[in-house]
Amino acid sequence: MSGTASPALRTALAYYEAWTSHDLDKAMSYIADDIVLDSPAGRLEGAEAYRGFMGPFVQILTGSKMIAAFGDDETALVMYDTETVPVKSAPGAECVTVKDGKITYSRTVFDSAPLVAALQASS
Amino acid sequence: MSGTASPALRTALAYYEAWTSHDLDKAMSYIADDIVLDSPAGRLEGAEAYRGFMGPFVQILTGSKMIAAFGDDETALVMYDTETVPVKSAPGAECVTVKDGKITYSRTVFDSAPLVAALQASS
Repeated sequence: MSGTASPALRTALAYYEAWTSHDLDKAMSYIADDIVLDSPAGRLEGAEAYRGFMGPFVQILTGSKMIAAFGDDETALVMYDTETVPVKSAPGAECVTVKDGKITYSRTVFDSAPLVAALQASS
Repeated sequence: MSGTASPALRTALAYYEAWTSHDLDKAMSYIADDIVLDSPAGRLEGAEAYRGFMGPFVQILTGSKMIAAFGDDETALVMYDTETVPVKSAPGAECVTVKDGKITYSRTVFDSAPLVAALQASS
């Protein structure tokens, strides 16, 4: 893991630390009001929509492990594994753009198939 | 994008350049014989299994764009978007371990749901 002095990575890691600690309010303090998120759920715009996306996920989160994290002045790229109530290993990757200590854009990649399957099985 | 001088990133980018150019033989020249791949398809071990995983994907690949790429001596982390025949945007992320110019381990994350849906629709 390199580039821990990178401004963008510092923000991305602080954000990761917050949401993996189930501190959604603190996590949202690193999210810009006009954030744009592209993920398997499609495009979401604005902090309120972003919170609506992250909130349910944080609620089912039981563990996490950072796999790799890099960054430069404006961009950070992280990959982590998560453990959730329905899915034992649900890794994800985020490429974020950071401006003035806030994440303004996030491209998030994860496999939605096991999560959807688990939700369908439980409904 | 930073760290282009990183040994691991050089290998990861050469590998990416090869498979996105549909040159599967060249791509495999960067893959260690005993590679281990963890992906939404589960764990695959060995270059032959890896080729069996990548081959069909390369065949449906119509475009690609690197989103971000970082690395250090032994690890590289990349995120890219791909366009395939069935799915217009199929982004992926790979965290690879590189030893002596070959990828020995890859953790690959992508959303399998749209690919599976497209395959089911076409069958």
